Amino acid sequence: MFEKNMKFAYLLDLYGALLDEHTKNVLTSYYEEDLSLGEIAEETGISRQGVRHAVKHGEEQLAFYEEKLELSQKDDTEKAVLALLEQAKAALLAGTDAAPLISEAIAKIKK
Amino acid sequence: MFEKNMKFAYLLDLYGALLDEHTKNVLTSYYEEDLSLGEIAEETGISRQGVRHAVKHGEEQLAFYEEKLELSQKDDTEKAVLALLEQAKAALLAGTDAAPLISEAIAKIKK
Repeated sequence: MFEKNMKFAYLLDLYGALLDEHTKNVLTSYYEEDLSLGEIAEETGISRQGVRHAVKHGEEQLAFYEEKLELSQKDDTEKAVLALLEQAKAALLAGTDAAPLISEAIAKIKK
Repeated sequence: MFEKNMKFAYLLDLYGALLDEHTKNVLTSYYEEDLSLGEIAEETGISRQGVRHAVKHGEEQLAFYEEKLELSQKDDTEKAVLALLEQAKAALLAGTDAAPLISEAIAKIKK
């Protein structure tokens, strides 16, 4: 069984720069352009088996980088901090207390 | 000429998890424990030339990761945002306007 796992689309965004050109191109076609293995094979002139191998290899690399660096966690933190700061801005405009929101954002960054 | 460049101590902190065990150990001794090539050679039983090679190889890997992922920039942004939020908290306590500080922090995150 060989399935598209869309978490790799996200990891490709975070770590794609670390992949070699060929692997990156194949994964981009597969995950971002949503082509099938057969379509990529046709487009690149590689065998379907070769494309499948490149996808598998690339996914393993992405999973390795994520396991080691956990950038997706940092990305989640960044989004959460951003949301808190937008709320803090709104609170200031509304004349309500923004301090707890700012403290929460600080705590998230420091964690 | 072979010199310690302390930027690698910082990059080791950011990307050390991606290095193989041997390279990571040698770089840690060299940059974090500040041992000399000769001292590391003695400690590990590798030749001085072998240690030098491992340091060079590790530095190249760290430089590659930094060139591709630029995590040091993200780290700088995080520190700047944290400083702005601490200022915003102080501004709220002092009863002065915290909104521009929060807006600046948001802009830094989004950049």
